[in-house]
Amino acid sequence: MRQNKYDDAGFFENYSQMPRSIGGLSAAGEWNALRAMLPELQGKKVLDLGCGFGWHCRYAREQQAHSVVGVDLSENMLERARELTDDPQISYRRFAIEDIDFNADEFDVVISSLALHYVEDFALICRKIHHCLVRGGTLVLSVEHPVFTALAAQDWHYGPQGERLHWPVDDYHFEGLRQARFLENDVVKYHRTVATHLNALIESGFMITKLSEPKPSEEMAGNNPDMQDEFRRPIFLMIAAVKN
Amino acid sequence: MRQNKYDDAGFFENYSQMPRSIGGLSAAGEWNALRAMLPELQGKKVLDLGCGFGWHCRYAREQQAHSVVGVDLSENMLERARELTDDPQISYRRFAIEDIDFNADEFDVVISSLALHYVEDFALICRKIHHCLVRGGTLVLSVEHPVFTALAAQDWHYGPQGERLHWPVDDYHFEGLRQARFLENDVVKYHRTVATHLNALIESGFMITKLSEPKPSEEMAGNNPDMQDEFRRPIFLMIAAVKN
Repeated sequence: MRQNKYDDAGFFENYSQMPRSIGGLSAAGEWNALRAMLPELQGKKVLDLGCGFGWHCRYAREQQAHSVVGVDLSENMLERARELTDDPQISYRRFAIEDIDFNADEFDVVISSLALHYVEDFALICRKIHHCLVRGGTLVLSVEHPVFTALAAQDWHYGPQGERLHWPVDDYHFEGLRQARFLENDVVKYHRTVATHLNALIESGFMITKLSEPKPSEEMAGNNPDMQDEFRRPIFLMIAAVKN
Repeated sequence: MRQNKYDDAGFFENYSQMPRSIGGLSAAGEWNALRAMLPELQGKKVLDLGCGFGWHCRYAREQQAHSVVGVDLSENMLERARELTDDPQISYRRFAIEDIDFNADEFDVVISSLALHYVEDFALICRKIHHCLVRGGTLVLSVEHPVFTALAAQDWHYGPQGERLHWPVDDYHFEGLRQARFLENDVVKYHRTVATHLNALIESGFMITKLSEPKPSEEMAGNNPDMQDEFRRPIFLMIAAVKN
């Protein structure tokens, strides 16, 4: 399955109004955590899988990456990404992530931010990323956390006054398709356990170098009462890994 | 804090009546998963941290390990362990896990089964294990899963008819002490995130080689309706790692 929800006009319109779509990386609560996991980018050839509007691609160039390739299946996303830069060292290519077919050793760094939970075959992607990375190259990915994706509802358990009682987990070991809701639309996501993510990477030849289940900084939490709930359950899983 | 609950007579009596205390490894639902993560043990020097009645120690010798040291703080546990073997190649030593002080390169394999969630300073233990393992040596550990330890209650969320609605997660990012109940006693456990476990191992110099969040086999689940609920949330986290 190659999901291309972002070329659905209504969905894309809703996505375009999200804070992160307007404000970019600084409006994405998890960006600080992801950035901390990135290697030095200067002079590097970078691939961004599920690049969306290209925020990470432009960031990589700000960090003096040699060149950046952004991959996304959505023409809407790529059109916006192309509007936002005239940097000749950034190129955007329209592919489903599952269909990438880069040469061996083509990249030094692969980034994928909040895209791979839309992909059915995670092990295949791991092998493809491993193939196109140089030896010693780094993969940094983030996905929705398995605790977050286990139940398709992806919502708190509420009390009678609408208060958030706790985060419900169920069906954790039943991996696979989840018909979830995102931006008032049906979206297909794939639930995988923590172990499945890490073992697929290890079996593809990666060495795990860092995990993160990011939480808000004290500063961020202090300014935003809603953020307090982000200490209550993990929402993202981030993994940095190096090709052996 | 050095917890020694197993030398509390009432607690020990209750523990002694658990299926796994009577039936050993084959009565422990997670044993198949742990065994699958163990390296070849033949000829190896093995350390078992939190050895209890010594089931894993005796298993290692059945697999022709060269020698086995079992460590536990409970005199009750070690007394029973000593009663259960006269193998001169198994020795039991009374220590808190936090206080081990073995020589460098003393062991080829370190096992710790469901003990380290009782230990406050996980990073310290990782460094001590790394120290006493040979280069290339293997650590295999299991702990209660962070999804299981996040809430001290460690119980399902029930509906009005007492049905198990889902597993509640809360306070996930608040690591540290949990005053839990086990065998009708107060027990202190320490909650740590998945990321904290893995990063502590990596920072100590380990390479992660395998994760497991074990679930029942089809056969096991088929014979026991209660086991069906074990597919609903992860209860154990198992990690295999090699000293670089």
